[in-house]
Amino acid sequence: MLFGKVIGTVVSTQKSESLVGLKLLIVGNFDADGKRAGGYVVAADSVGAGLGEMVLYATGSSARQTDITNNRPVDAIIMAVVDTWDVGGKTVFSKYESVDTADV
Amino acid sequence: MLFGKVIGTVVSTQKSESLVGLKLLIVGNFDADGKRAGGYVVAADSVGAGLGEMVLYATGSSARQTDITNNRPVDAIIMAVVDTWDVGGKTVFSKYESVDTADV
Amino acid sequence: MLFGKVIGTVVSTQKSESLVGLKLLIVGNFDADGKRAGGYVVAADSVGAGLGEMVLYATGSSARQTDITNNRPVDAIIMAVVDTWDVGGKTVFSKYESVDTADV
Amino acid sequence: MLFGKVIGTVVSTQKSESLVGLKLLIVGNFDADGKRAGGYVVAADSVGAGLGEMVLYATGSSARQTDITNNRPVDAIIMAVVDTWDVGGKTVFSKYESVDTADV
Amino acid sequence: MLFGKVIGTVVSTQKSESLVGLKLLIVGNFDADGKRAGGYVVAADSVGAGLGEMVLYATGSSARQTDITNNRPVDAIIMAVVDTWDVGGKTVFSKYESVDTADV
Repeated sequence: MLFGKVIGTVVSTQKSESLVGLKLLIVGNFDADGKRAGGYVVAADSVGAGLGEMVLYATGSSARQTDITNNRPVDAIIMAVVDTWDVGGKTVFSKYESVDTADV
Repeated sequence: MLFGKVIGTVVSTQKSESLVGLKLLIVGNFDADGKRAGGYVVAADSVGAGLGEMVLYATGSSARQTDITNNRPVDAIIMAVVDTWDVGGKTVFSKYESVDTADV
Repeated sequence: MLFGKVIGTVVSTQKSESLVGLKLLIVGNFDADGKRAGGYVVAADSVGAGLGEMVLYATGSSARQTDITNNRPVDAIIMAVVDTWDVGGKTVFSKYESVDTADV
Repeated sequence: MLFGKVIGTVVSTQKSESLVGLKLLIVGNFDADGKRAGGYVVAADSVGAGLGEMVLYATGSSARQTDITNNRPVDAIIMAVVDTWDVGGKTVFSKYESVDTADV
Repeated sequence: MLFGKVIGTVVSTQKSESLVGLKLLIVGNFDADGKRAGGYVVAADSVGAGLGEMVLYATGSSARQTDITNNRPVDAIIMAVVDTWDVGGKTVFSKYESVDTADV
């Protein structure tokens, strides 16, 4: 899994039937130090994540191991909203207070 | 899933029998800001995407989770044509109007 | 799937029994513009591809979706020989005529 | 599998039900020479690894091949704590003595 | 599959039960021209490969398609020791004679 921030949304009407009802969010990658890393992924949301929230996402076949993504052509899923994470004994990110993390 | 634009087509007569009937399209990668990123993928089309359209594609085993790709040696699939996407509250791409996106 | 040119062959006598009878070819990566890209893959051949031919290959579990690779420890397969491909309305590669593509 | 050092922890209350009870650790990548490499992964722990320990982790569907991760949306797992590793006949890392390895 | 040279060994006592009995080797990546490339992988050995031998390894779920790795949390496997490989009509590597290949 990797850390990412929900930075955007996607609208699509012409899509595979198996995607109907899935919420697709754009997630920008973050490194372990809480800085914006290169790259992004469009992920299905399994936890009700909102814009600007820091999340964990999984990729590959593991993205299909939830009720909402089972047997669907989806290769990335948000499976957790992050409250806090620590590296080397200090808090890198906390959703409850302002921490020095790069914005979108 | 990642964003990409359909930039080309492939013709092959000498191929695995399991590929017969599949439409294969060349998709150039785009980043979340709507700019052409490096790289491409040749993907099977499950939604009737056309040349120049912005799409979402999935890779890996997830690419086989459609009726047309089930049990086939296909590792990338177009599963949606993108109408619009937003990042940070502004529209990055819209198929209905001209937005500043990099061409092929 | 990605484009690649068959650039070499491999000989191995000490190998997993499940590989016996498989032809393994070295495939150099090509980008969508028909130029040699970095990297290579050693792929099983499911279509009778020859040295110097431009092919499409798939990776991951999708490489096992053919009769010859089913249940084998193979993570890349050549599933098509490419006749031609077009990008942006012009022919990038054609096996029938000399086109400006990078050699091995 | 790759080498990594457990450098941090993650707390999440809003997550997929299938993740309940799993311990998620932040693992910083190390190269074969025992130096900190770029990148990290958030992995489920199957062996009781502790902060600062050098571990081996596996990714992709292989991360689900343990009792604790079976059928869960998890794409990385710590499956071993490393005692020592050797490259080219010399010990690169040993948990029992101080060896020149890059810190977090 | 990719080429790699067996450059080291790993010892772990605290590990997933499903790994007991597997030999894990450190494999340094080689490119198609026989030069040491960046990166490495820790792979299970299915063919009795020895230190210094050039091998082929497969990754992902394909690494579990052998009797010794079936249902185990292993994402890389050595499935062949390489005798020789040719690129562009000349021998890049031969285990029987000294060829200009980069050392570890």
